[in-house]
Amino acid sequence: MRTLTLNNETKKNILNDLLKRSPNNYAEFEGRVNEIIANVREKRDAAIFEYTKMFDKADINASNVKVTEDEIKEAYSLVDEKLLEVIRKAKVNIRDYHEKQKRNSWFDSQENGIILGQKITALHTAGVYVPGGKAVYPSSVLMNVLPAKVAGVKRIIMTTPCGADGKVYPSTLVAAKEAGVDEIYKIGGAQAIAAMAFGTESIPKVDKIVGPGNIYVALAKKAVFGYVSIDSIAGPSEILVLADETANPKYVAADLLSQAEHDEMASAILITTSKELAEKVSVEVDKFVAKLSRKEIIQKSLDNYGYILAADTLDEAIEAANDIASEHLEIVTKNAFEVMTKIRNAGAIFIGEYSSEPLGDYFAGPNHVLPTNGTAKFFSPLSVDDFIKKSSIISYSKEALQAVYKDIVQFAECEKLTAHANSIRVRFEEE
Amino acid sequence: MRTLTLNNETKKNILNDLLKRSPNNYAEFEGRVNEIIANVREKRDAAIFEYTKMFDKADINASNVKVTEDEIKEAYSLVDEKLLEVIRKAKVNIRDYHEKQKRNSWFDSQENGIILGQKITALHTAGVYVPGGKAVYPSSVLMNVLPAKVAGVKRIIMTTPCGADGKVYPSTLVAAKEAGVDEIYKIGGAQAIAAMAFGTESIPKVDKIVGPGNIYVALAKKAVFGYVSIDSIAGPSEILVLADETANPKYVAADLLSQAEHDEMASAILITTSKELAEKVSVEVDKFVAKLSRKEIIQKSLDNYGYILAADTLDEAIEAANDIASEHLEIVTKNAFEVMTKIRNAGAIFIGEYSSEPLGDYFAGPNHVLPTNGTAKFFSPLSVDDFIKKSSIISYSKEALQAVYKDIVQFAECEKLTAHANSIRVRFEEE
Repeated sequence: MRTLTLNNETKKNILNDLLKRSPNNYAEFEGRVNEIIANVREKRDAAIFEYTKMFDKADINASNVKVTEDEIKEAYSLVDEKLLEVIRKAKVNIRDYHEKQKRNSWFDSQENGIILGQKITALHTAGVYVPGGKAVYPSSVLMNVLPAKVAGVKRIIMTTPCGADGKVYPSTLVAAKEAGVDEIYKIGGAQAIAAMAFGTESIPKVDKIVGPGNIYVALAKKAVFGYVSIDSIAGPSEILVLADETANPKYVAADLLSQAEHDEMASAILITTSKELAEKVSVEVDKFVAKLSRKEIIQKSLDNYGYILAADTLDEAIEAANDIASEHLEIVTKNAFEVMTKIRNAGAIFIGEYSSEPLGDYFAGPNHVLPTNGTAKFFSPLSVDDFIKKSSIISYSKEALQAVYKDIVQFAECEKLTAHANSIRVRFEEE
Repeated sequence: MRTLTLNNETKKNILNDLLKRSPNNYAEFEGRVNEIIANVREKRDAAIFEYTKMFDKADINASNVKVTEDEIKEAYSLVDEKLLEVIRKAKVNIRDYHEKQKRNSWFDSQENGIILGQKITALHTAGVYVPGGKAVYPSSVLMNVLPAKVAGVKRIIMTTPCGADGKVYPSTLVAAKEAGVDEIYKIGGAQAIAAMAFGTESIPKVDKIVGPGNIYVALAKKAVFGYVSIDSIAGPSEILVLADETANPKYVAADLLSQAEHDEMASAILITTSKELAEKVSVEVDKFVAKLSRKEIIQKSLDNYGYILAADTLDEAIEAANDIASEHLEIVTKNAFEVMTKIRNAGAIFIGEYSSEPLGDYFAGPNHVLPTNGTAKFFSPLSVDDFIKKSSIISYSKEALQAVYKDIVQFAECEKLTAHANSIRVRFEEE
């Protein structure tokens, strides 16, 4: 890992480097994605089955697109008993944390008969996309489904690509069943996103689509935004450790590598006020990398987007952390909670030396679907809020409206909207 | 206005009609919008000033793009004293309502040293787009700016096109000043959206862009989504009145027209269980239209998207209202609050015969930026939530992590992420 001195120039260069991980050649894929979406809107089932044959080499049709109870039973028989046990423990923690995010409808009343409020309603139907491909992440299923379940979404469907044999990974099916998914469909890619956005004979139209995916899936989600709601577009994983001389270099090194192993675009950054820690972490990183099974991915990720930055002051280190706005931020310093108060931008904040980042990936309860690539400046972790919507409530008595009606008429007339003015006036003035 | 009987077929036809109002010929504009965005990213100020010359016929440059204090003073001298007074009254109501939407950071602790929580932080910079063009809506300025202000956004900027004389409408400037906008820039269109998304020499990069606009503005917002956050894409206005025989036909007719006057794409629908009310409203509508200044727009809107629907039962009427998911819903029935409990989809719900829709447009306090065209099924009114973001908080003691560390290692190993497993194990096991 490169060790650099933190200053405005290194910070600027690093920020530029990190942003390069956002795909800038969208155009190349956009045409293809738009074609898939248009085809699915028009030909519906026929289109999705054709694409499934083409991309996933699987013969899927209206009679086998939906995963059956028997297939789920089979999956349970194939999944390690211990994994099932951990899935169930994690589920309880994730559910309990998200329960605390639930909000009440509220109203405020005044004695003249005014009631104003906000009504919370869960979305009716949510669609969760689960990628197939290289790695299988049952934890991702839990993290995407459980907030919808806690919010009270009536119908939760899942789409995921199957293998050429028409089968879905057993651990995906088991995690889906445990999390409470109502229906699972064996389609993937942009065609699955389009199917959920517009509906087909087999796939229901949903209100919101969530879940990670490759560039086709990401672009398809962006394209259907507005027809349905979507979560934010996920990017490569990131960790930033903010540490002083009290930190254990071995723990810090191990935590940095836990994110670097995700993929070659992942980023792991240490910012520390201790030159000694910087040196020790660098040594520990090298020792660990040599022993880890995903060492090639880790090394590339560290070469490209791994940094150890030595800062003169803690304030300077904190400011850099806010500028980088990392997906995961660990604070391993004296008075770590005090430092936390100064953090404005981070997806999830891990405080203290026993709050290792993977604790949050699997187990603690907060969501692991987090804003990446600087978007923690404006996006939030996936939450119950993503699966509810609000309606304003307005109720005025005759007395209350009469007291202000001339003001409203005045405002409407200034905006030259005379029918607006008329609708208020007609209640109080004879023509 | 057409009077039809509500049944599954009429409902389906109306839903199809309403959806036609969504622009389906995006492609025609998309190329142009993408070109503008690319140019602004590359040439920055030079590009936005060139487009301002081209589209707004105005000579704007780095020295005059920002509205000065003198210009704002001049605007105050030009605005009707009475309008200013109403703006100030409305501001108090809007601010008070949005204050109630503010949320606390929270945490939950367990005696073994676990702290989990959610930290709320306001966005740092918000950009509000205000259209120029046909109509001037100071109320729109208040509704877009005040939620950001209440949320605690540090820097609120506004962009709005100027006339060929380089001037901005006085009432826009006055409303902006009253609402607490920090800086106002005289640029409009897709170029303004691109400037706020990526920053130029003169225009700061923002975290979130909100505000209505024409098709270029809407497409530009969609294109920059992900680089910044955006609000939902606004469509033509809608009102749906749910009424029984207790409703006053004159009030209902006047309220329907208040939305029909917005533009020719606006939709006004009455669903009633009373055939008598249906007939009377139809008569009252015709009487009002003849007298209203915007009668041509109103008539076109009613011809295209205006319906009076007679329903057999209240339940059937309510179900249709949920399917249509109108921006504005008035409930003018017996036991109106009981009916409200059955409404799942609506932007704003107006309850009782004195809760005329324009009351919400200007004055009552809830936001008038509402989901349209069926998107109330998944989108919400603009609110304080749009200008905050959340960070998860995770803090485990040594004791707490030790108790569960084997579960986490197990989960990580099942997902084949060995560096994840290592980061937990290293804290408790000697190599």
